[in-house]
Amino acid sequence: MTAALVAPAELDARLERVRAAMRGAELDGLLVADPANIFYLSGYNAWSFYTPQLLFVPLEGEPVLAMREMDALGAHRTAIRYADGVLGYPEPLVHRPDTHPMVWVAEQLRERGHARRGRIGFEGDAHFFAVRSYLALREGIPEWDLVESRELVNWVRLVKSDFEIGEMRAAGRVASAAMRAAVDAIEEGVPLYELAARVQAAQARGVAGADGDYPAIVPMFLYGDGADTPHLTWTDERFGADTAVSIELAGAHHRYHAPLARTVALGRPSPELERLAAVTVEGLDAALAVLEPGRTPADAHAAFSRVLAGHGLEKRSRLGYSIGIGFPPDWGERTVSLRADDRTELRENMTFHVIAGMWMTGYGFEASESVRVAPGGADVLTDAPRRLIVKETP
Amino acid sequence: MTAALVAPAELDARLERVRAAMRGAELDGLLVADPANIFYLSGYNAWSFYTPQLLFVPLEGEPVLAMREMDALGAHRTAIRYADGVLGYPEPLVHRPDTHPMVWVAEQLRERGHARRGRIGFEGDAHFFAVRSYLALREGIPEWDLVESRELVNWVRLVKSDFEIGEMRAAGRVASAAMRAAVDAIEEGVPLYELAARVQAAQARGVAGADGDYPAIVPMFLYGDGADTPHLTWTDERFGADTAVSIELAGAHHRYHAPLARTVALGRPSPELERLAAVTVEGLDAALAVLEPGRTPADAHAAFSRVLAGHGLEKRSRLGYSIGIGFPPDWGERTVSLRADDRTELRENMTFHVIAGMWMTGYGFEASESVRVAPGGADVLTDAPRRLIVKETP
Repeated sequence: MTAALVAPAELDARLERVRAAMRGAELDGLLVADPANIFYLSGYNAWSFYTPQLLFVPLEGEPVLAMREMDALGAHRTAIRYADGVLGYPEPLVHRPDTHPMVWVAEQLRERGHARRGRIGFEGDAHFFAVRSYLALREGIPEWDLVESRELVNWVRLVKSDFEIGEMRAAGRVASAAMRAAVDAIEEGVPLYELAARVQAAQARGVAGADGDYPAIVPMFLYGDGADTPHLTWTDERFGADTAVSIELAGAHHRYHAPLARTVALGRPSPELERLAAVTVEGLDAALAVLEPGRTPADAHAAFSRVLAGHGLEKRSRLGYSIGIGFPPDWGERTVSLRADDRTELRENMTFHVIAGMWMTGYGFEASESVRVAPGGADVLTDAPRRLIVKETP
Repeated sequence: MTAALVAPAELDARLERVRAAMRGAELDGLLVADPANIFYLSGYNAWSFYTPQLLFVPLEGEPVLAMREMDALGAHRTAIRYADGVLGYPEPLVHRPDTHPMVWVAEQLRERGHARRGRIGFEGDAHFFAVRSYLALREGIPEWDLVESRELVNWVRLVKSDFEIGEMRAAGRVASAAMRAAVDAIEEGVPLYELAARVQAAQARGVAGADGDYPAIVPMFLYGDGADTPHLTWTDERFGADTAVSIELAGAHHRYHAPLARTVALGRPSPELERLAAVTVEGLDAALAVLEPGRTPADAHAAFSRVLAGHGLEKRSRLGYSIGIGFPPDWGERTVSLRADDRTELRENMTFHVIAGMWMTGYGFEASESVRVAPGGADVLTDAPRRLIVKETP
């Protein structure tokens, strides 16, 4: 059941890169709480992040993985690095007003000699590093000078290894299959929850050679009153004739993600939707063409914006973001954004979700691709017609 | 698409109860970040919790809902309370090392007169109240004396209204259908991802009169090497003859959850699994019988433990926890636990997931029910045979 998803040598190379970044940031240790970062470094993969857990990475010596006692066995099965040093905190510490698991973890780290004076990074924007965890560690190990790590591990994850690109391609194939399932399912009278059912089944099944993993975000459908509103999920509303829906989904494989968005018109699309779709796709094409080594996110954003401006349009939100490993609630890496002021130098094997989402009043259009930065422009990992998809009604 | 799921009068009553609890805790304001708590108080329902968002509840006057600009429209569509006062922070603040959305939110709250001296509660164990959010608010509004709220809103949620019990019953029906789909899908040679596909489709579809919403946790299957290991998700392993799998899932309806767990034997179960199942179910029955008003979680735990002890067994982790509204990554309320030292007085319409999970070495058995505390003992919201389910092989 629980074969390792990542080779030990790959994990060791990742740890070395993280430690090099720690030296650059003058950190003596790093508290890693983001499940994607823990998976990246250790291979640990379980739905256990709803109770406190932590990977402590000292600059030298063995990292320590701390989690709930109930989950320590799962760590032994999947965390092919650091499994021997897993600290499982006692079950009675779960959900207590008077004490906290990280009080215990701090004591254990002290016993193991880690309560030494030094600069220790913490992940201030990680979803699963709660304020109580932070305060308990600060109080439990006052020797530490706790400093915000600025997504240190996330930045190390930005350029993918060849192994990771293979996983991302597999995720892209799953995404493409899930989008085909969505387009197939859309018919007049079909409720949105049925569309969700078909998409989620396709996401789990995957395709030959690439079984599906759970995506970090559920499929989202922008329809009806909510056609202009991102991030709503599904309802019991049914598709009507001559309507349109924007579909946001991802394929996931071994925790790697390839998101994909398309707008589907059921029956006759409105002229304004057709115009919006044509302009947006032209802009997306232009952005993809410049996603090559040596360019910047700002270049891609400018290429997109130039096309839109020629038609009197603009997009206020970013055009995309880096992707890779994801755990709920997000498949983004929280590092590079495709926006006007991001001057990060693009390098081969960075991977992005380029999402051209245009939400007007009462309607909207989305087209996105998951891509690899490559010489000559984006290497597209997903496979769906890059246009407004029109489904004829009988 | 986006009809209100909760009546305004219900939301107003909830706010009054929260404010009564705030007065009891001598709080002048409360920072609510848990998406379940925000939904409970405002009706806001979107997959937007991966960027910072907050509901500020002053003791008097209108609460303020703050979130990303892109999501403010979704708040207008679903948050039937406080939608007029939504603060949408500018898109360029997303994922910045140099500033943070909560810096902006603090400024806005100050402009609205909320930066007054007082005790302000924060949710120290909420998954989506990051340390950077906490630090930005502490720095931005030094007038505030920030104190940990000890899950104040979660405790208010503990006793359900009649409306909520109706939603929970609907969720229970969805859970029961999803479990039937799981049992139907298990056959020799079927891969675990196919089981996930069938379960997730059933969870989304729901049943007549109760459409399915996305559960806060994906379905989990304890199988093969991992049969004794909670919280692992699915793989590409295929069911073999004379094996067993423990299935953990939930039905969700309008964000309310009813979890349900069962172990299914495919072919002949081992004698030790049959013995474990019989004892565990007997213990579960005993625990359910005492879940009535006036008793305590400790009583239920004792009833279970007595049965197990008679067979030389014990369970180190808790026997269950309160449930209701859930958003990823958890459907528990983080308040009452069914364990030996929890002496909370049980009241009618508290709802629990009672999970008798026994993980031995190399095998395990689970049976759970979602229940309402009622006179005479638990009112069971889920419907599945309470025993080891045996599927004959051809």
